[in-house]
Amino acid sequence: MLFRTDMAVERRDIYREANKLEDEIPGVDYKEEILSDTIKVTRVKILDEQGEKALQKKKGLYTTIDVKKLNNITTEEEDKIIDIVSNELRKIIEKHVVKQDEVLIVGLGNLYSTPDSLGNKVVKNVEITRHVKKYFPQFIDSGERSISAICPGVLGTTGIETYEIIKGLVENIKPKMVLAIDSLASKSIERISNSIQISDTGIVPGGGVSNARQELTEESLNVPVVALGIPTTLDAATIVIDTLKMCNQQNVNEKDIIDKLTLNNFNFIVTPKEIDEQIEAMSEIIGDVLNNTL
Amino acid sequence: MLFRTDMAVERRDIYREANKLEDEIPGVDYKEEILSDTIKVTRVKILDEQGEKALQKKKGLYTTIDVKKLNNITTEEEDKIIDIVSNELRKIIEKHVVKQDEVLIVGLGNLYSTPDSLGNKVVKNVEITRHVKKYFPQFIDSGERSISAICPGVLGTTGIETYEIIKGLVENIKPKMVLAIDSLASKSIERISNSIQISDTGIVPGGGVSNARQELTEESLNVPVVALGIPTTLDAATIVIDTLKMCNQQNVNEKDIIDKLTLNNFNFIVTPKEIDEQIEAMSEIIGDVLNNTL
Amino acid sequence: MLFRTDMAVERRDIYREANKLEDEIPGVDYKEEILSDTIKVTRVKILDEQGEKALQKKKGLYTTIDVKKLNNITTEEEDKIIDIVSNELRKIIEKHVVKQDEVLIVGLGNLYSTPDSLGNKVVKNVEITRHVKKYFPQFIDSGERSISAICPGVLGTTGIETYEIIKGLVENIKPKMVLAIDSLASKSIERISNSIQISDTGIVPGGGVSNARQELTEESLNVPVVALGIPTTLDAATIVIDTLKMCNQQNVNEKDIIDKLTLNNFNFIVTPKEIDEQIEAMSEIIGDVLNNTL
Amino acid sequence: MLFRTDMAVERRDIYREANKLEDEIPGVDYKEEILSDTIKVTRVKILDEQGEKALQKKKGLYTTIDVKKLNNITTEEEDKIIDIVSNELRKIIEKHVVKQDEVLIVGLGNLYSTPDSLGNKVVKNVEITRHVKKYFPQFIDSGERSISAICPGVLGTTGIETYEIIKGLVENIKPKMVLAIDSLASKSIERISNSIQISDTGIVPGGGVSNARQELTEESLNVPVVALGIPTTLDAATIVIDTLKMCNQQNVNEKDIIDKLTLNNFNFIVTPKEIDEQIEAMSEIIGDVLNNTL
Repeated sequence: MLFRTDMAVERRDIYREANKLEDEIPGVDYKEEILSDTIKVTRVKILDEQGEKALQKKKGLYTTIDVKKLNNITTEEEDKIIDIVSNELRKIIEKHVVKQDEVLIVGLGNLYSTPDSLGNKVVKNVEITRHVKKYFPQFIDSGERSISAICPGVLGTTGIETYEIIKGLVENIKPKMVLAIDSLASKSIERISNSIQISDTGIVPGGGVSNARQELTEESLNVPVVALGIPTTLDAATIVIDTLKMCNQQNVNEKDIIDKLTLNNFNFIVTPKEIDEQIEAMSEIIGDVLNNTL
Repeated sequence: MLFRTDMAVERRDIYREANKLEDEIPGVDYKEEILSDTIKVTRVKILDEQGEKALQKKKGLYTTIDVKKLNNITTEEEDKIIDIVSNELRKIIEKHVVKQDEVLIVGLGNLYSTPDSLGNKVVKNVEITRHVKKYFPQFIDSGERSISAICPGVLGTTGIETYEIIKGLVENIKPKMVLAIDSLASKSIERISNSIQISDTGIVPGGGVSNARQELTEESLNVPVVALGIPTTLDAATIVIDTLKMCNQQNVNEKDIIDKLTLNNFNFIVTPKEIDEQIEAMSEIIGDVLNNTL
Repeated sequence: MLFRTDMAVERRDIYREANKLEDEIPGVDYKEEILSDTIKVTRVKILDEQGEKALQKKKGLYTTIDVKKLNNITTEEEDKIIDIVSNELRKIIEKHVVKQDEVLIVGLGNLYSTPDSLGNKVVKNVEITRHVKKYFPQFIDSGERSISAICPGVLGTTGIETYEIIKGLVENIKPKMVLAIDSLASKSIERISNSIQISDTGIVPGGGVSNARQELTEESLNVPVVALGIPTTLDAATIVIDTLKMCNQQNVNEKDIIDKLTLNNFNFIVTPKEIDEQIEAMSEIIGDVLNNTL
Repeated sequence: MLFRTDMAVERRDIYREANKLEDEIPGVDYKEEILSDTIKVTRVKILDEQGEKALQKKKGLYTTIDVKKLNNITTEEEDKIIDIVSNELRKIIEKHVVKQDEVLIVGLGNLYSTPDSLGNKVVKNVEITRHVKKYFPQFIDSGERSISAICPGVLGTTGIETYEIIKGLVENIKPKMVLAIDSLASKSIERISNSIQISDTGIVPGGGVSNARQELTEESLNVPVVALGIPTTLDAATIVIDTLKMCNQQNVNEKDIIDKLTLNNFNFIVTPKEIDEQIEAMSEIIGDVLNNTL
């Protein structure tokens, strides 16, 4: 099964639909919470190997906060959403670190490719404290957490796997947790720039766009890896298939479409026209969330 | 007929196919020149009102230079292409201005939206001389042409029609020609970042993406308007329809697809993954072309 | 007298010191208001030709809000400052326009030179409404003001005087007021990124850095011109002279220093190391001020 | 002795002048080569501990290529300079690696501070091959060198010493040489954006601007470290002192000036007005040099 999405909640939907399940997928637990007219939180918990196999994602909790028109909201609504996301993130972080434990933030993606630049831009908005605590402890509240950050770049522009960079760094500076920020692929037009997925299962850089890399996980790095991502692109197959479904063309052969696109070396992405602006807005919101939570 | 492309050569193909024409479209003249394995020049000349009506473009010559893999070439190939495009542009310019006549370059589009930023970035690469000729004539060869440039921004971020800005400026500084640089929409995946269209018929800012604005033409501005554009986006309907054709789905209803996309307020664009990089490369090439030609 | 500063309040100080005045300069009125430990508002009113001649600035009110460490403040302090600046700006605007009168914002300066990019970046943060009011009045509260904006670029990159661009535009779209945003030169290290000057006397683009251009004023444009500026650079002579004064070198010959710097074609600027970051922060603050006030 | 410059050739001049030496500094060898009206190559060789102590730089060869108006040259002159710098770099590199040995390029500095962004921007212009050689060897000439690159950021935005990032990475990917690219501080106005210094003695990130960090050298990393730098800033003290000398003020007390500037927490830099543009041009030139040489 080829999911073409990084979002656990979408994979669950696709799997249930494809397998015509009315009950929950064995090995998966699902909860939904409507917080307001515009905010919904869903929790997909992958419980065991059976669930892992079904959704092709690691065991653990995947929380998704869906916001209608996240990219076009008032300051008040923004504050509310920052609160909600901060709470969800805090719940997950508190399982792994206590108050002052050092956290290393990893801003994944390519600064020079707009829809993939979220991780880099979030890092720019986060308050870094590790060097102050280390060299000028007199200037910082002793209860403050030590926070560092790195943007390792992408394989295509560095020639180096993200894992190769982070592995050595984690061994050298010994944080108690890694928090990875990334752009995701979604298969739903509505989720682009409107959803936030948080999990504590680590991350496979570039995972959603077919060029999988060595994973950043607790197994590979020996520290817990929490991931926060926002979908910023659809793949080309998704938009073709979704449109055909909207047109009630029942005889769509998904596999055929994907094969043809691959065959033609079709390396295109689909983004909202306003993606540059949305990435700016999202990276400020997530920056505030991290500054709140850490 | 809805063309969903700014390229005259594509409109001609669509029109002939839709009308099952074997001969040329009445009112249109067409020529093709293969310059090398990788470079092809086509010339669509709209001769009269009949041709205008068929292709929904103004009377005049539309030259297209198609380059295979323009975005991934050696320095030598690049120099060759700059020569070819410079020659084509020179032919068109020389109909309208003589050696020292002042030219105003207009960089259309939105600097803050990557696929639409070409015009702004080309202007950054052009050598401006008007102020030197005017205030420091001793520092410049007296045979040099006077060149000025402006990036008026887009309606969505200025609240002002491009025409409203350019109209007053042309009246004030009185150039002998306007040369407008723009990003175009194409309906062909291969043409994205691989084609250059030059015409002397003026331009309708935002023309290809449904939000038409007041045109920049010789009629509206009282000076000749030459336009140079590069396709940087496909629209969403194009990719759906093209893919279905690749899959030999004969029963595709184009109108239905477009209606559904419009109904769902589907404001997405399709670009190559590497569009940020391609725009940089293209704007350097076109900058060189303009510096050569003017 | 060569002031090397765009700030009226600094020119007053320099003039009084140079002329050893204990009373106010004839033709000038001065008021100071301490709002808090960190915020001071000063008002220099040039009353007549005598004052104009002394300070080499046009008749009218120049309000300066000085904030200690404006570039490093809490969100609460930021909100307070936005309020204060909004109030000062409102007082000046209300002299010239009533509720719904159209305002044209002009973002002066060069986007591609960091310390000079403030005007461009503020425009990016302002809500533009003119096109909505004009084309989609159903989507906007009818009491809302019509706001448009343009970034004309600088003479060096356009070859066109700012005045030549704005003149025609004002005639075409007929706003009731122009609000110009600009980076200023200051002669005080403490004011860089820490002060805001508002006046209703118009502006001379590039005025503080020796390459004076045609002015944007009510006389030249036939609409009132309010200017809001923030100092972002010192000139080289300032830093030399200030340092010598700190070292109690009484025998400094200012004229000699400036002559030597000019002779050596010394085209350098002095900015804080963190100027990139400060410009971002300032442009968000001023964007909020404009959205509040207009 | 406080040099306030990263350039060995300037330190030699300062030391000789301060010590009124007519002969060469003991422990230092100096050679000068005039290549043309506009290009001069100087070689400062620090031979032993005595030379190290005098110039406060590590033993080894420091080659400086000075170009008059490097930032404003014709394409032909540019090609010539790229050739000259490539030759100098090649001489140094060939001492340490043979044809196919892997090289790791380290782009030092802060992308978000214009005068400090050179290293990041050069990396953007370099052709990276390591991942192609590793994962798709069929697409690359087997004689091609393996090249990777990283931009580690600066302590202020990552909280992590550059050394801590590079140390682990070098251990993981085991390059045969590190090539570090950095912006330098100079004490000469003429050298800003006009000089290139190459050495094989490693680098102290942030070395010239008072906040010294753990060094990147063969001793600390166990691989040779070649450094290429371009001066992009003067410090404030330099400009004060230089101007006074131009004014023939003999009684300047350098120490007093520096103390006063430090006391007033004067964290300003001096750059050419056109620094944004110059950094772009320099990073393309150095990108070409690296692509030529490696």
